Amino acid sequence: MLPTQSSDFPAWYGEVVRRAGLAENTAVRGAMAIKPYGYAIWEAIQRELDQRIKATGHENIYLPLFVPVSMLAREGELVEGFAPEIAVVTEAGGRRLEEPLAVRPTSEAVIWATYARWLNSYRDLPLLYNQWANAVRWELRPRLFLRTSEFLWQEGHTAHETEQEAVAEALTILHDVYADTIENVLAIPVLRGRKSESERFPGAVETYTLEALMRDGKALQVATSHYLGQGFARAFDVRYTARDGSEQHPYATSWGATTRLVGGIVMAHGDDRGLRLPPRVAPQQVVIVPIVRDDDRTVVLEAASALADELRVSGTRVRVDDRPEHRPGFKFNEWELKGAPLRVELGARDLAAAAVTTVRRDTGEKQQIPMAGAADAVRELLADVQATLLQDGREERAQRTLRDPAGYHELIAYLREARGFAEAPWCGGSECEARVKADSSATIRSLPLEDGPGSGVCICCGRPAVTEAAWAQAY
Amino acid sequence: MLPTQSSDFPAWYGEVVRRAGLAENTAVRGAMAIKPYGYAIWEAIQRELDQRIKATGHENIYLPLFVPVSMLAREGELVEGFAPEIAVVTEAGGRRLEEPLAVRPTSEAVIWATYARWLNSYRDLPLLYNQWANAVRWELRPRLFLRTSEFLWQEGHTAHETEQEAVAEALTILHDVYADTIENVLAIPVLRGRKSESERFPGAVETYTLEALMRDGKALQVATSHYLGQGFARAFDVRYTARDGSEQHPYATSWGATTRLVGGIVMAHGDDRGLRLPPRVAPQQVVIVPIVRDDDRTVVLEAASALADELRVSGTRVRVDDRPEHRPGFKFNEWELKGAPLRVELGARDLAAAAVTTVRRDTGEKQQIPMAGAADAVRELLADVQATLLQDGREERAQRTLRDPAGYHELIAYLREARGFAEAPWCGGSECEARVKADSSATIRSLPLEDGPGSGVCICCGRPAVTEAAWAQAY
Repeated sequence: MLPTQSSDFPAWYGEVVRRAGLAENTAVRGAMAIKPYGYAIWEAIQRELDQRIKATGHENIYLPLFVPVSMLAREGELVEGFAPEIAVVTEAGGRRLEEPLAVRPTSEAVIWATYARWLNSYRDLPLLYNQWANAVRWELRPRLFLRTSEFLWQEGHTAHETEQEAVAEALTILHDVYADTIENVLAIPVLRGRKSESERFPGAVETYTLEALMRDGKALQVATSHYLGQGFARAFDVRYTARDGSEQHPYATSWGATTRLVGGIVMAHGDDRGLRLPPRVAPQQVVIVPIVRDDDRTVVLEAASALADELRVSGTRVRVDDRPEHRPGFKFNEWELKGAPLRVELGARDLAAAAVTTVRRDTGEKQQIPMAGAADAVRELLADVQATLLQDGREERAQRTLRDPAGYHELIAYLREARGFAEAPWCGGSECEARVKADSSATIRSLPLEDGPGSGVCICCGRPAVTEAAWAQAY
Repeated sequence: MLPTQSSDFPAWYGEVVRRAGLAENTAVRGAMAIKPYGYAIWEAIQRELDQRIKATGHENIYLPLFVPVSMLAREGELVEGFAPEIAVVTEAGGRRLEEPLAVRPTSEAVIWATYARWLNSYRDLPLLYNQWANAVRWELRPRLFLRTSEFLWQEGHTAHETEQEAVAEALTILHDVYADTIENVLAIPVLRGRKSESERFPGAVETYTLEALMRDGKALQVATSHYLGQGFARAFDVRYTARDGSEQHPYATSWGATTRLVGGIVMAHGDDRGLRLPPRVAPQQVVIVPIVRDDDRTVVLEAASALADELRVSGTRVRVDDRPEHRPGFKFNEWELKGAPLRVELGARDLAAAAVTTVRRDTGEKQQIPMAGAADAVRELLADVQATLLQDGREERAQRTLRDPAGYHELIAYLREARGFAEAPWCGGSECEARVKADSSATIRSLPLEDGPGSGVCICCGRPAVTEAAWAQAY
């Protein structure tokens, strides 16, 4: 039996990840082995992100894993931010290296050292590049997918003529690449916003973020997009000849999404029976379980196989679970644990009725549908599962968002119990931010993308508010 | 101007890689930056290999970059083979590590430590997994794509019940994944064979190899597939309960193909004007160059754009090069350098004739084709370019293969001048192999997959031959 979410969410998470065959720990602390089922989910995420990254005009490149420590140190905030997490190669090819090499925690340093070679004229701008890579940040408290010493990700790095263009780029990525993928493919609703100064990426002028609610009431930062100003261009002396003939530094962005998203899918959709995968990322969207007796095995298995072929032709990822050593009930449980969106049961009784029985993973709803036209019906059911998961997430977030708490005590009590997001006016002061954190362990997850006129008074200090903030406990 | 192939092949190679925008060196010795055009070629190779890897029943996984040094050392031949090339992380998270971590030179050690957890019963077999990853092998004499300290690759690792199955797996990969991709997608003909003992992968019982002829007469090993016997299973104590209830070690294979293939495309197809890309891997299969004058700019650009749309709909990758700052002649040279398989010129004269002018990169052949039905004609032309490149490669290899040299001196003279492959009977002795190498710098690139009855006498020592060997100088 799985632990329940309400009794012990972290234990539930760990067991689901392990038993569903997503990933496991290895001999290297914090470095995980991603198993076939987990990797297939990541491949679906990659495919969807990569399409959108290319559709918005970016090309893929690949830059080195190793960064000379002196290169990493050229942008002060970056190296300060990542220093505690860096892994260092000191020996290679049987010798001690003259200069130690950091294993990339992120590639701003390498990319800007490279852009110094690639950028000459305003005609070369914008530079719109992305890479799919691994990165290493040493973790003291690792959790599979959520915080791992090595993770997989894409990291985009762009350079622009104007601040306005660079900010627009960072927001295009936030909305058209990340939010579109995470809401419409992963079926996870997101809050779109900005980070407060204390939560910004090292070296960023502005960090845009997507925050999602997990089923334990905590928030997960699912993707970030940074407007970096001219800091990296200055640090790496990247200049170009502008339209007016002057020498200028370009404006930068960077943005990334990681294997953490797989953990987000588990925690946003999972229930006490295991995973619930959105059809668009499910390795198997439909699992057909043949219900056979000794005398009808051949005819049932043939019908299952024919149905599978029909579904495949219509573009559905399907598997027939015909393992002879397991009974149907065992398979039902296993595919519920693994979160297959739709189960199709097919036995002699269904065949006699020229029908199949479908069971939705999201709602548990069971129905018999005619065999004729089953492919279309299955496609519609899958679309409905996809939409329902997103809608459920939206409703849950609405229910779990405390708007305008009556006072500081209500805010703190709500946050301390991790009941969800709390939105309240904030004065913009880091003292108030720190006080809420000290009192509740919660942090400001996001600020509105556009500052409205500050209304009301800060929930914490009573001074005039400059913005609304969304707080939550976070991963 | 490019250096010519005949005057200085290495300089020609370096300049083509650089000027065509494939890759460049970085601050870390031997680690390259793969640029957008080069990476797009690699993505095409990845797509094709990944399809075939999955079609032959394998799933993708991801295992850690770091391998504890003691884990790497468990298989003696492996660690001995790779020790001189290993990069070692000794510090992480601000502390000295208790045990240093090797950056994976290959993942046999990690995978077999993992299979020890994954494998219990014969029912779990075969294990058929692959990963896309980076790997690090410190290079003293790096060359872009061909020998780099970090490279990208896929590495497959499988486990089987019987030796026969494992050998069949290694050969399936050699033929159906690698040779099929390299011949039919990369248009590079390959010799399929086995390595002699001295050239085998560390820890392998048998290394199967694909060897291709480059245009300087040297051979490039383009992919290898290894039958590993039970050595890794024993070293990592991987056992399973067999059908008869006994405990058994499984039989292993591993196989990999790397970014080196991009270099192979350059050296197998390139000519003195630059790259010649096979259409199936070309980032742009067709480049449309509008020929405009002041008075017809709009109508010509519109026609070019309409043609591009039509070609895209028919599945062709196409780019309209409408850069106003460059003249057509400049663009012709640039796209010849970058190896676009087909150039389409479109000017007022073509429009008046309701036609377009096509120029093949492989043959230089120029023809006018009717605008109506241009998409089909272009598809046929591209198919013909693809077929012609492979056919040319086959003919060149046939011409550059010396069969049955009259004696040792002819063999050595031929090999020393790197005129191509030389095939001759060999006694199987490592002394003869070493002698040829000492006299000519050439090595045995491959032995036939199946030993025929040895015929004739060894070209080197005159004793009875056990097999035919194919020698060449090699990258």
